[in-house]
Amino acid sequence: MSAAANRTIIIALDAEGGDHGPSTIIAGAEQARIRYPDVRFQLFGRPEKIAAALTPFPGLKQIAEICPSTTVISAHEKPSLAIRQSKTSSMGLAIQAVKDGTAHGIVSAGNTGALMAMAKIALRTLPGIDRPAIASLLPTQAGDVVMLDLGANTVCNANNLFEFAVMGEAFARAVLGIATPRIGLLNIGSEDGKGHEEVKAAAELLKNCTLPMSFTGFVEGNDITKGVVDVVVTDGFTGNVALKSIEGIGELCARFIKDAFHSSIFAKIGFFLAKPALTMLFSRINPQQYNGAMLLGLNGIVVKSHGRADAFGFANAIGVAHNLASYGVNEKITADVKQYHESTAAVK
Amino acid sequence: MSAAANRTIIIALDAEGGDHGPSTIIAGAEQARIRYPDVRFQLFGRPEKIAAALTPFPGLKQIAEICPSTTVISAHEKPSLAIRQSKTSSMGLAIQAVKDGTAHGIVSAGNTGALMAMAKIALRTLPGIDRPAIASLLPTQAGDVVMLDLGANTVCNANNLFEFAVMGEAFARAVLGIATPRIGLLNIGSEDGKGHEEVKAAAELLKNCTLPMSFTGFVEGNDITKGVVDVVVTDGFTGNVALKSIEGIGELCARFIKDAFHSSIFAKIGFFLAKPALTMLFSRINPQQYNGAMLLGLNGIVVKSHGRADAFGFANAIGVAHNLASYGVNEKITADVKQYHESTAAVK
Repeated sequence: MSAAANRTIIIALDAEGGDHGPSTIIAGAEQARIRYPDVRFQLFGRPEKIAAALTPFPGLKQIAEICPSTTVISAHEKPSLAIRQSKTSSMGLAIQAVKDGTAHGIVSAGNTGALMAMAKIALRTLPGIDRPAIASLLPTQAGDVVMLDLGANTVCNANNLFEFAVMGEAFARAVLGIATPRIGLLNIGSEDGKGHEEVKAAAELLKNCTLPMSFTGFVEGNDITKGVVDVVVTDGFTGNVALKSIEGIGELCARFIKDAFHSSIFAKIGFFLAKPALTMLFSRINPQQYNGAMLLGLNGIVVKSHGRADAFGFANAIGVAHNLASYGVNEKITADVKQYHESTAAVK
Repeated sequence: MSAAANRTIIIALDAEGGDHGPSTIIAGAEQARIRYPDVRFQLFGRPEKIAAALTPFPGLKQIAEICPSTTVISAHEKPSLAIRQSKTSSMGLAIQAVKDGTAHGIVSAGNTGALMAMAKIALRTLPGIDRPAIASLLPTQAGDVVMLDLGANTVCNANNLFEFAVMGEAFARAVLGIATPRIGLLNIGSEDGKGHEEVKAAAELLKNCTLPMSFTGFVEGNDITKGVVDVVVTDGFTGNVALKSIEGIGELCARFIKDAFHSSIFAKIGFFLAKPALTMLFSRINPQQYNGAMLLGLNGIVVKSHGRADAFGFANAIGVAHNLASYGVNEKITADVKQYHESTAAVK
């Protein structure tokens, strides 16, 4: 089994990452196997744990290779210490498989900081990209939107934001299947002159860019979920706060809806009748549905699953890695960045 | 009628600000009159417009003074141009009433930038405060939370953030009636060492501060609506994006709920039975309920209503001004800041 094999997508899974351990990861892999007939897995972890988790899934066993590791990086391990376990941990060895070319991508539900640190060292950034960014999908009133950076870069300059736009655009083409994604730059107003220097300078770079990109200008926080753009670009501090604010209000709404339906006997009957509709509603805003954030800009496909993901959520994260690998997202980003740098060099 | 009059709170209203004009503003004032028997109004605007809007409300007429102005600042007027209308516009003259001491506070649903610019020039900042900030209430799983800055300051240093904490704490005492509000600093992780330099330095200032404040450390985006703190402090860029992201996802949830209940005949019957409970639900997350953002740190009470506010929403914004004036929020902030500066001077 090698990455060069025809018509298969090989995903390395950090089977020991996440809050629920190998059983959830493996159950997620089984769901992904049924969804994607061309997928194959490398399962990194302690062999006895993985073998036990595989027992209920004979079909998965057929297409999965157990790749032994001896250590597990804890959720609270500092990235600077985690990198010492690059050669022993399930996460480190799974990244190494991508570097060696035996896997097309890695999915981990483990420590984000450690994953980013180890992946940066092992895979390095794509040619012409200064900094990787974390990108994910969010629901909107009209389809999904890609947002980045969600926390990899606390402080960003205009060039970083510009590169995020290029990467986010390729991501949207790969995962959303949109030919010309509309790009918006997150700001506190839509008029020119609003915002800090970095966001204003990034807008100028995007406006004057020779790549065939559809830059629609500034968007505000309430535009993220409106569906007016396909890619929302921001720095990692703002993006992380916005994403988590959205998660928080989602939880609040779910809690209030639950309270409302327990408030009277009529409400309870109403709830019973409306249950299928409400189940559909929750599936539309279910964070598990949107699980799987890509560490974009690295020379390899690295997808981060939420630590709390269930099997369905983890299968969705595998789906992100699968789609990105099938599409060849990194080749597209590299070509775009190369074209951009050549055109700006020509102007100079 | 003067601000010194016993047991009355006089509020100057910019009767021409906002998307709906004087009729909505005056209808909101009528609702506030019924809620707050001690309130009196000064209504700034073109007299014929105000007189017409007052016709349905004889009770309000009794406690309101019409204060003529000749111009209206448009929603898109640049602040630098708006200030030329300080002496002629409904907004400018209403601010002037606060400066002159004939009103305890002003409420406007007009242009935020113009309001901030004119109020800064006319009222100036409180002693010891560098920069005003915009503060508002948001719903949480356990009561309400004060968040600031929501957009007045795009870039903030540690001292600005520290001052926002002092001001937000006094605001929470005034509006939420909490003796010792818990203060959280918005960041992308709760551990020390997370975030950019400004937020880390602000945390140090708050930890070492001699004021009797309850600083609980860093909070993340999803904590805003959890009810784990009473005051969330952040810079105006992040705060504005977070607030609007929350508004956006609220709209999305409302839309999805509506879709869900129209999806089948059973869902429709369920909706009919659950309607009172759902009405209660929406009232808990209704943005009109939370209307009224204070421009904190100015030497006067200035409350901004959302431009789209209805009469109920505008009455709530008047309520914020009323509570802040009754509590003497600015006197409390001034005393806190003075105590802080004296204690740090003593240490030096």
